[in-house]
Amino acid sequence: MSGIFSKIIAGEIPSYKIAEDENYFAFLDINPLSKGHALVVPKKEIDYIFDLDEECYNGLFSFARKVSKAIENTVDCIRIGMVIYGLDVAHAHIHLIPLTGNNDIDFNKKRVKLTEIEFAELAKTIGHEFLEIK
Amino acid sequence: MSGIFSKIIAGEIPSYKIAEDENYFAFLDINPLSKGHALVVPKKEIDYIFDLDEECYNGLFSFARKVSKAIENTVDCIRIGMVIYGLDVAHAHIHLIPLTGNNDIDFNKKRVKLTEIEFAELAKTIGHEFLEIK
Repeated sequence: MSGIFSKIIAGEIPSYKIAEDENYFAFLDINPLSKGHALVVPKKEIDYIFDLDEECYNGLFSFARKVSKAIENTVDCIRIGMVIYGLDVAHAHIHLIPLTGNNDIDFNKKRVKLTEIEFAELAKTIGHEFLEIK
Repeated sequence: MSGIFSKIIAGEIPSYKIAEDENYFAFLDINPLSKGHALVVPKKEIDYIFDLDEECYNGLFSFARKVSKAIENTVDCIRIGMVIYGLDVAHAHIHLIPLTGNNDIDFNKKRVKLTEIEFAELAKTIGHEFLEIK
């Protein structure tokens, strides 16, 4: 049985998609720590990021770098932080979190609320920025 | 003037070194969130990780992957988490944090205390493991 991220990638569960290519997929976290908080995943459903083969692992970080730049071009932030934790969903994923101060990386903190329209517009804008990045 | 990590790399400030090659350097965080918490840095002093050139960026994550495996082979943990935050020291660095439960990534939590001898032995053991990894 495929997990939640595979269902999102397949379009069986809706998501606010930012970008995808043959091997990777990026979408907004619906419980964001800050506006623009996104998840980047390999399409291959492998639990632990360090179990990805070298090519897929490197490609994932290159893809995440492009997504980070697109987020940074879209939302107000000092820079983009990156967290890989992975004890929640058994499908390797990188959190990209726009940082605005010193306490943005705290998964226990209150999440930012956005409306569905705000999420959709944000994903679309970041997605457009993504296409501009070399 | 060079920053603290450049001084550590140059050996001007002591550290519990795990591994280094021509371009990268890994050492134990002396205020660890868990035993084995390490920092991986490029030798080039560049503040923001996404400002590294593509080759240096990819090499850094490949190096961090090897360091992660070496830590995992040394300390008791479920897996290794990764955090890039970077608002503290203006020299790109990856935190590698052995995860033992659900609250390991909380930079406000109480740090683990180790003696100098424990730090030195831990760095040495992880360093040996690093050399075994392909």
